[in-house]
Amino acid sequence: MERVYRACLVIIGNEILSGSTQDANLAFLGEQLNEIGICLDEARVVPDIPERIIQTVNEVRANFDYVFTTGGIGPTHDDITSQCVADAFGVPLLLHPDAYKAMVDFYGEEKLNEARLRMAHVPEGAILVENDISIAPGYQIENVFVMAGVPKIMQSMFSKLAPTLVGGKPVLSKTVSSEAKEGDIADGLGNIQREFSDVDIGSYPFMGRGGTGVRIVMRSTNEMNLEQCSLKVLQLLEEFS
Amino acid sequence: MERVYRACLVIIGNEILSGSTQDANLAFLGEQLNEIGICLDEARVVPDIPERIIQTVNEVRANFDYVFTTGGIGPTHDDITSQCVADAFGVPLLLHPDAYKAMVDFYGEEKLNEARLRMAHVPEGAILVENDISIAPGYQIENVFVMAGVPKIMQSMFSKLAPTLVGGKPVLSKTVSSEAKEGDIADGLGNIQREFSDVDIGSYPFMGRGGTGVRIVMRSTNEMNLEQCSLKVLQLLEEFS
Repeated sequence: MERVYRACLVIIGNEILSGSTQDANLAFLGEQLNEIGICLDEARVVPDIPERIIQTVNEVRANFDYVFTTGGIGPTHDDITSQCVADAFGVPLLLHPDAYKAMVDFYGEEKLNEARLRMAHVPEGAILVENDISIAPGYQIENVFVMAGVPKIMQSMFSKLAPTLVGGKPVLSKTVSSEAKEGDIADGLGNIQREFSDVDIGSYPFMGRGGTGVRIVMRSTNEMNLEQCSLKVLQLLEEFS
Repeated sequence: MERVYRACLVIIGNEILSGSTQDANLAFLGEQLNEIGICLDEARVVPDIPERIIQTVNEVRANFDYVFTTGGIGPTHDDITSQCVADAFGVPLLLHPDAYKAMVDFYGEEKLNEARLRMAHVPEGAILVENDISIAPGYQIENVFVMAGVPKIMQSMFSKLAPTLVGGKPVLSKTVSSEAKEGDIADGLGNIQREFSDVDIGSYPFMGRGGTGVRIVMRSTNEMNLEQCSLKVLQLLEEFS
């Protein structure tokens, strides 16, 4: 049987839980991981509380092939991710010479205050992950990848680390939409799902200005079955539109 | 000491993890719960796998005052939330007479097929939560509130159940933005955070078309301290803008 690679995303930050910031990293990461054959299999959003971050990181790094974290690696008092990850691994937080050098070059000795220097500290043994937007790095320690929360920076970090990830077959997807009612197509759709056991069929009703309907998303690593499955779904939808 | 009420949101659905759907319920719920003095303290996104949903529901309902779930209560094969919640509580899934009557009235006997009837089944002992958009209900069982995934329906369900929730003091918030650099204000901001221990100060850098800067979000149940804290933060930001 084909090996399935599973990842968990840990989103760190009170701002996401309070609703003051809308997360944009989960959807990005889910899509990108699909393409390299890694299944984003869980996500957790945790507050800026050290014990909660440490406990969550330790729990998920034991249960998933890859763990990605976003948020909390900036220079301010609420940026506690790196200390928590170091504590989770039971290693000290150390000034990384390459990160230090990059920051000195960028800011100059004068503007490189204590707050900014925090961003050059990583857990012992971590490998830096650079990005094209900011000078502060993310990093990898074992199967945990620590990234920024700002989407643009996170995306740049991910583009740098993605080539190092080992995945399985890419997950392909097909989406079809229709004005059909979910309750009308449900029986037929269940039959198609039973026929194509290696295609994951999801049914998502929508309502908007353009009217109501249903969006069917099919995902599989098997291109031929995905194609055949989508033809049957299209037939079904036409029957009830 | 003041009692703090803590909630966990469980977002159920492969579509969120694959990135094909952007979640909109977390931010809504986080904001709404703040207003009634309940802290959204964690969120988990789990796939449509029964054991994972059951395990997650059982874990979080033991650890939080309130659990909210979104997604997976429609009529199609991938809507497995209700069976999983019933299994988590160790009770059977039963046809609820009120939900059944509402659906017969709406669809008529003829269109009320087996798929739609699934939406009238709830775990034994559950209390229905209606909504203004669709005929299919959500429900409450003990401290777990099961809601739809479609944001409009979820929001309507939440508006019906919100008056039944017991919370603490509302969490008030103030947000100020500036073009200051996070690294410049970090030390001063840390000092202000130490001075106002009952205000949660978050610092969030942003970058967009309008330029880069930082947004400071302050949250507290203490209105006077929140006010004084925000004045000090404003002073600090002006110093570095």
